[in-house]
Amino acid sequence: MLALRGSPDSPDLPGFPAGVYYRGEVTIAVCPGSFDPLTLGHLDIVRRARSLFDEVILGVARNSSKSALLSAEQRVEIARAALAVSPGLEDVRVEIVPGLLVDFCRDAGAAAVVKGLRGGADFDAELPMALMNRHLVGVETVFVPGDPALAHVASSLVKDVARFGGPVDDLVPAGVGDLVRQALADRAARADGSAQAPPTTEGTGR
Amino acid sequence: MLALRGSPDSPDLPGFPAGVYYRGEVTIAVCPGSFDPLTLGHLDIVRRARSLFDEVILGVARNSSKSALLSAEQRVEIARAALAVSPGLEDVRVEIVPGLLVDFCRDAGAAAVVKGLRGGADFDAELPMALMNRHLVGVETVFVPGDPALAHVASSLVKDVARFGGPVDDLVPAGVGDLVRQALADRAARADGSAQAPPTTEGTGR
Amino acid sequence: MLALRGSPDSPDLPGFPAGVYYRGEVTIAVCPGSFDPLTLGHLDIVRRARSLFDEVILGVARNSSKSALLSAEQRVEIARAALAVSPGLEDVRVEIVPGLLVDFCRDAGAAAVVKGLRGGADFDAELPMALMNRHLVGVETVFVPGDPALAHVASSLVKDVARFGGPVDDLVPAGVGDLVRQALADRAARADGSAQAPPTTEGTGR
Amino acid sequence: MLALRGSPDSPDLPGFPAGVYYRGEVTIAVCPGSFDPLTLGHLDIVRRARSLFDEVILGVARNSSKSALLSAEQRVEIARAALAVSPGLEDVRVEIVPGLLVDFCRDAGAAAVVKGLRGGADFDAELPMALMNRHLVGVETVFVPGDPALAHVASSLVKDVARFGGPVDDLVPAGVGDLVRQALADRAARADGSAQAPPTTEGTGR
Amino acid sequence: MLALRGSPDSPDLPGFPAGVYYRGEVTIAVCPGSFDPLTLGHLDIVRRARSLFDEVILGVARNSSKSALLSAEQRVEIARAALAVSPGLEDVRVEIVPGLLVDFCRDAGAAAVVKGLRGGADFDAELPMALMNRHLVGVETVFVPGDPALAHVASSLVKDVARFGGPVDDLVPAGVGDLVRQALADRAARADGSAQAPPTTEGTGR
Amino acid sequence: MLALRGSPDSPDLPGFPAGVYYRGEVTIAVCPGSFDPLTLGHLDIVRRARSLFDEVILGVARNSSKSALLSAEQRVEIARAALAVSPGLEDVRVEIVPGLLVDFCRDAGAAAVVKGLRGGADFDAELPMALMNRHLVGVETVFVPGDPALAHVASSLVKDVARFGGPVDDLVPAGVGDLVRQALADRAARADGSAQAPPTTEGTGR
Repeated sequence: MLALRGSPDSPDLPGFPAGVYYRGEVTIAVCPGSFDPLTLGHLDIVRRARSLFDEVILGVARNSSKSALLSAEQRVEIARAALAVSPGLEDVRVEIVPGLLVDFCRDAGAAAVVKGLRGGADFDAELPMALMNRHLVGVETVFVPGDPALAHVASSLVKDVARFGGPVDDLVPAGVGDLVRQALADRAARADGSAQAPPTTEGTGR
Repeated sequence: MLALRGSPDSPDLPGFPAGVYYRGEVTIAVCPGSFDPLTLGHLDIVRRARSLFDEVILGVARNSSKSALLSAEQRVEIARAALAVSPGLEDVRVEIVPGLLVDFCRDAGAAAVVKGLRGGADFDAELPMALMNRHLVGVETVFVPGDPALAHVASSLVKDVARFGGPVDDLVPAGVGDLVRQALADRAARADGSAQAPPTTEGTGR
Repeated sequence: MLALRGSPDSPDLPGFPAGVYYRGEVTIAVCPGSFDPLTLGHLDIVRRARSLFDEVILGVARNSSKSALLSAEQRVEIARAALAVSPGLEDVRVEIVPGLLVDFCRDAGAAAVVKGLRGGADFDAELPMALMNRHLVGVETVFVPGDPALAHVASSLVKDVARFGGPVDDLVPAGVGDLVRQALADRAARADGSAQAPPTTEGTGR
Repeated sequence: MLALRGSPDSPDLPGFPAGVYYRGEVTIAVCPGSFDPLTLGHLDIVRRARSLFDEVILGVARNSSKSALLSAEQRVEIARAALAVSPGLEDVRVEIVPGLLVDFCRDAGAAAVVKGLRGGADFDAELPMALMNRHLVGVETVFVPGDPALAHVASSLVKDVARFGGPVDDLVPAGVGDLVRQALADRAARADGSAQAPPTTEGTGR
Repeated sequence: MLALRGSPDSPDLPGFPAGVYYRGEVTIAVCPGSFDPLTLGHLDIVRRARSLFDEVILGVARNSSKSALLSAEQRVEIARAALAVSPGLEDVRVEIVPGLLVDFCRDAGAAAVVKGLRGGADFDAELPMALMNRHLVGVETVFVPGDPALAHVASSLVKDVARFGGPVDDLVPAGVGDLVRQALADRAARADGSAQAPPTTEGTGR
Repeated sequence: MLALRGSPDSPDLPGFPAGVYYRGEVTIAVCPGSFDPLTLGHLDIVRRARSLFDEVILGVARNSSKSALLSAEQRVEIARAALAVSPGLEDVRVEIVPGLLVDFCRDAGAAAVVKGLRGGADFDAELPMALMNRHLVGVETVFVPGDPALAHVASSLVKDVARFGGPVDDLVPAGVGDLVRQALADRAARADGSAQAPPTTEGTGR
């Protein structure tokens, strides 16, 4: 269904890459992330992406690092359940990104990666990756300011707060808080079995 | 041709505004600016916008400030001429933004404002405006990294360099350099008639 | 009522200035600004300051620059009226800062200057002033994050939007919108009398 | 001794949270951190906090991460010893923060968290945590510029320099340098017993 | 005395410009600025530049803007007098930059422009100019952190403070404070003769 | 061959350290890093350093952290091979930095550390280290903007892309891509032998 359109080589524009990317009649965007777990902040960005592009895919990174609390499959399940009950977002697909994000985008025919942005330092950190992805397959990364009222909602803070029994249910979709608490309890039980892993308070205090 | 779609009110998302915006089957984006004059950096952003959205409008701010070198009409003319010979950008419309950008966007049915971004400090400066525009009519501002190879190309620097006879023809579309030099000469002649206006070297040195 | 307390000279702390500042039993803070006009964003910061310090003074800079829309007296009047009806803020004093902020702080016995902060670039811009004020009289500047939900509320944007008939009444205290519109009309009338001053659209679009 | 004061619910201020926090006649502030080890930079911030608030608590995070060089108890001991001989800071309490910082603040009746700030990127990194803490219990985080003359003094750099026998005694309170060197030697001895752990030079060079 | 050296065209380095610049056996650096007036902060940067390069030129921008308090000739004179009595800086030349900084650098055979840097936002603001200057003649801009203990010393703040009779003599070389006060008095007298120019307090308070 | 020159103690400059550093007739600069592996971005910075200073040393940090893909010896070898065939850079020395960078600089008689800079957040992160190194031995850190066209080239991204078979040969010197792929394969084989280490997609997507 994709047709080659736009972005022809333009020799008179110094620095502008030759037409490296396909753009279809239908513009597809990917919202990538670990989603460990999905938060209301993520849903906010997905909603904005969906208001701008014809199709949106939420791409869950199969994250190998040990720090991931939930399995990739759990994270996918959570996202699917949350989107299914979010008006206007029912048609957002959730898929695992098995390797490079750019390979995923190319396979999906996606023209854009959409990222939420909190502040200027965020942008500086994201820029090299965005330029690398553009260099590799020509996909554009577009940055959208998140809802400032959700500026405190980050997956890492959700886990930090939940670890100490703090309230997180107003930060994540319904039911996700329980999954996070269960996963934290499982992990603590495993840690108890081997060595003692005292809790951290880093996340909300330094 | 526009149909109301998406963004329904979602009461379970704290901080997410009610469905304030229209999104058509055709997604329209506006690239706003003074374009005094249009540079290759602007064209780079327009081209990226065009690869993401169905229609793109270059919105020239009718800038009242005395610092504008070229008239709004000249700036429109330059942009139209440049786009007409840019493969893939021939259908980008150029229009004057007479008042508030959000009024212009609403009238045009535009869902997005597209801005190039150089660095984190840029983002911090743009954020309040982007949030105000979202607050007023729900239009989203999306930030796209410009081509880093054009990071030195800014309208203000073009004028600074041209004022002292420096080369700018590789920074702007063909023919624009001459228009800038002519306008600078006209302004200098007017200034000579009244008071002495010694040159500045601010732009490229401080 | 002030007593000298704290901040004795500490020779073992390199770089720590000798006891330059007075701190009373009552800690007084100043929220400085142009307040042209006072917005809900300003009130948010004042409220946070009031929750932290015993007394808070809103210091209105007698701003000489022509760009001030409202007179210093009008700006004081607006602030007083707004605070009088804000529960918990009735005892915040409003005063004109006639000269250097540090002279005002010293005369008022204020130990702290309180500023709202939007992003990192803001901080970088404010830091030299904060350090200069500390150098001059030892007053500390403390930065408080504003309510993110008000991140779009800035005096300059309020004026830009109002200039084109946009809605601003939900950004400022009751009645202030009318005063701003009247002042803009007066200014436009004066401009009409002399030369033509076409409107700008800079503020919300660039 | 605490009385409920201030911060009543203000329905006319959009985005301003209802009166979630208690403020006593005595304003208490917490300076949180790992203090691994306490540096002169930390003392500088504590001193500024003490000049602004009636009571100051230095809150030592019981940090579970393996990267902590000193035990929480050692870190508390160091801080107490240093404060005891710092004129004007003798009444600063030192306590362990066992869990969430906000729980600690609530239990202590603290209205403010005080953090030193180096640059804008620091602020961007701290902002989500500050907003989360405000969201959870209404505590305010106030940012105070540290003494620029101590801008190079950070716990991590102190440990990096000491690891290679560099001088750190002018960066920390008297006696702390020896404790750090001893702890580094102990750790190296333990590492020698199991596997070879070659030194890093990351901290001061990249 | 200059010999062509280094920077040959390197086709295997994408993006690296062909050998556009001359580097002599003697490396010359320019410290550009308005120096309105020269401060101890400027001297700090010049001293660091002098410790790195064989020759240093302080380049005074002939600034046409009305906001310059001192004439270019005065600013040159102040700089020369200050450098003449600064051990190790006696051989730093002071010259007026009449036009583009890059033309000045080329004429002087300078390979580097040296700028002090306060924070990240500063860098973001300077970067386009640095890249433009590199683009035009290949001159490199190197950024050197200023002495943090002088972070509050800026020409604009010096003038703001002096305008209200605040102390500035510890911020500028000996004798410069008197020149600034005299110039401010002259300007005030001129303003008195035409219209009333009420004072501003912007600089140290906002 | 070094002679003491410059930087004498200047008592009239508050905050300027006494003459702590030696500067020879020949100015030597160090470009430090992990170089795991060397990229075209590193070569770009080395080339700029070489155009400014008489001698340049590429200092390879003997990095103990397990995250280093290549051994220090491999990294040195790669750098030497690349520099040997880079016109104008043949005389750049490559050495291992065994401990503190400042000790290395002092032993080498280097007056400057040269670092590439991408954005403002980078600078904020580097500043404390630069000031610590200045504090310890007086060495200056100078920041040079890298070629923006190489802004996407970072060692960490090179490894991330290569891990999934993405093309990296245009990001590193000839032959380096093969070495990286081999090292990644070796590491994966070792991991396979013990536990399963699923791949990460973090680097280019998050």
